[in-house]
Amino acid sequence: MFNSEDARWMSRALELARRGRFTTSPNPSVGCVIVQNGILVGEGYHQQAGGPHAEVFALRQAGPAARGATAYVTLEPCSHHGRTPPCAQGLIDAGVARVVAASVDPNPRVAGRGLAMLTDAGIDAEAGLMSEAAEAINTGFMHRMRTGLPFVTVKLAASLDGRTALANGESKWITGPAARRDVQRHRALSCATLSGADTVLTDDASLNVRWDELPESVQAGYSEAGSAASALRQPLRVIIDTRNRLTPGLKLFAQPGPILLLRGEITGGLGEQVEECVLPLADNGRLDLPLLLAELGRRQVNHLWVEAGARLSGALLSAALVGELVLYQAPKLMGTASRGLFELPELTAMSQVPELEWRDCRRVGTDLKLTARVKN
Amino acid sequence: MFNSEDARWMSRALELARRGRFTTSPNPSVGCVIVQNGILVGEGYHQQAGGPHAEVFALRQAGPAARGATAYVTLEPCSHHGRTPPCAQGLIDAGVARVVAASVDPNPRVAGRGLAMLTDAGIDAEAGLMSEAAEAINTGFMHRMRTGLPFVTVKLAASLDGRTALANGESKWITGPAARRDVQRHRALSCATLSGADTVLTDDASLNVRWDELPESVQAGYSEAGSAASALRQPLRVIIDTRNRLTPGLKLFAQPGPILLLRGEITGGLGEQVEECVLPLADNGRLDLPLLLAELGRRQVNHLWVEAGARLSGALLSAALVGELVLYQAPKLMGTASRGLFELPELTAMSQVPELEWRDCRRVGTDLKLTARVKN
Repeated sequence: MFNSEDARWMSRALELARRGRFTTSPNPSVGCVIVQNGILVGEGYHQQAGGPHAEVFALRQAGPAARGATAYVTLEPCSHHGRTPPCAQGLIDAGVARVVAASVDPNPRVAGRGLAMLTDAGIDAEAGLMSEAAEAINTGFMHRMRTGLPFVTVKLAASLDGRTALANGESKWITGPAARRDVQRHRALSCATLSGADTVLTDDASLNVRWDELPESVQAGYSEAGSAASALRQPLRVIIDTRNRLTPGLKLFAQPGPILLLRGEITGGLGEQVEECVLPLADNGRLDLPLLLAELGRRQVNHLWVEAGARLSGALLSAALVGELVLYQAPKLMGTASRGLFELPELTAMSQVPELEWRDCRRVGTDLKLTARVKN
Repeated sequence: MFNSEDARWMSRALELARRGRFTTSPNPSVGCVIVQNGILVGEGYHQQAGGPHAEVFALRQAGPAARGATAYVTLEPCSHHGRTPPCAQGLIDAGVARVVAASVDPNPRVAGRGLAMLTDAGIDAEAGLMSEAAEAINTGFMHRMRTGLPFVTVKLAASLDGRTALANGESKWITGPAARRDVQRHRALSCATLSGADTVLTDDASLNVRWDELPESVQAGYSEAGSAASALRQPLRVIIDTRNRLTPGLKLFAQPGPILLLRGEITGGLGEQVEECVLPLADNGRLDLPLLLAELGRRQVNHLWVEAGARLSGALLSAALVGELVLYQAPKLMGTASRGLFELPELTAMSQVPELEWRDCRRVGTDLKLTARVKN
């Protein structure tokens, strides 16, 4: 059983965990707080893959004060030797009396074994306190551990009447600068972004994270984590270009950060950071999206941020690969002749219509930001 | 100058004013509070056209305690003999020392004369305290007094991707029961509703207010105002039917409440509550919408609630007759082949796109309710 003191300390641990969100991928973001007789004696969070886990930082700070203390950790302590020794052992060695975890680690290599190690060593170990909040910090990681696939968020930008561009293709700018900064934040939070060649070609888009365009709160987060503009993590840019339409002169290739190009054939000559890859096509002659997602999962992509047109967005949705939609909706009207958001197979009854669930609605500058989850 | 005590009492007066919103049309909803040495001695609100004004109720309750008191009133006291004597004179006669009004009455027959009467009688009279909140209670009345036209709110119901019906016309139900109850509330708040024959024919819609489908808060408001189910005020239903497609058997004609039918020719035989009317057509062969709105203004329609298809909604917007949009957005996806929200003239540059301003965004059951105002 948990009490209100437990909730207070776990909130602090969650706050710490959130600090790592821009840098820990492919690892989860985890925070840890160690409390001795109601007094915080150590805290820490995981900063980047390969570096120490949250528990290590917290135990170091606590030193001998960890003996008999309670450790609050947002994810079950690991039980396996990875790049670092198992944290469950570290907590045992430090003489901690009680461990409270927010969520169980769905990583098949952990999955309850961390808690079991602690219990076996006579430590009072429990999980489940504020687990929803903990899940939300690592939506992508949790999803990949459970399914092998990245969690997919499709970004949309449209007018009040659901239009993304005029009939002639013009679309600059539907949404305002605050919404575009928010997109930068989502890119920075993601392990990879996915677009089609059309999206790249339409605006000569570079699809990278640009330090100067990040919201100030995100810049501050980076600085706090000890990394700054120069340490900005660029998500892997995944671009579908099965007709080999992208050419070397594009801005996309001039920006730093790795690119995975799904092509019809490999040409080379696009730069060192570009990996070309030919995947088998599906029966409809288009890229096999489930295969692509499986490949990205294999590459440890936790969270995939999609910025694409109506066809690719619709195809991902129809293939049941989408977890969430983020719609930036501008207070504009573009009319029925303008372009729409999702190409879907023909629907003849309302009962066939894909249903989602609203999760959030807020203002971002002059626009609204609406978030919906696909129902499981 | 106003102080925090003033704000407190004006808030109470605004709360009272809101109680009349379903019944005072074509009059504005007004509340009044009379305060003597920090103690409330009388209060009241306008309940329905022809009945006493808010000040009359409040002065009656205050009796001799009104002498030397402060009167808070949400709209400038009237200065003219209408169906009731001028309230400014009533306040003078009662010996009130100070009058605080939220907004000046834009009615050309008042327009500052009420305040002037008070000042001339030696009363300290000021307007402008919480005037935005007061305006919001009487958006329609204020707009009609200033322009001669009703304030037009266009209701929309669409999927996340801005679609109102499948390609085959099916649309039942895109939004959930809570959104439909909220529509009932808006109908009940409006002096008139406007639809096209298509909308009536598609669902054999009656477009009336149904007591059982009103939100409980609205039912409670009615009861508090002394009226109940039987006293429900039905807005005037205005239907554009220039091709005379509506026939006697429709539900529309079976429901209580007045109907104004804009027809190609007058046929009669539709029932006592139906007024047929032939208006000249515009150059494009369609009904002249500015002319219709002017006619509705002449009939003292303050607030017009539009439930129509993409063509009529688009035509109203293009004619600059729309003040506000209310969009009920369901967490569903209907695809680009489905029907859209607004038919607009061809747009070739983003600079031609009509811009609005988001005013509100909230959840209504499983749907979102988004409100946008047209920029002036």
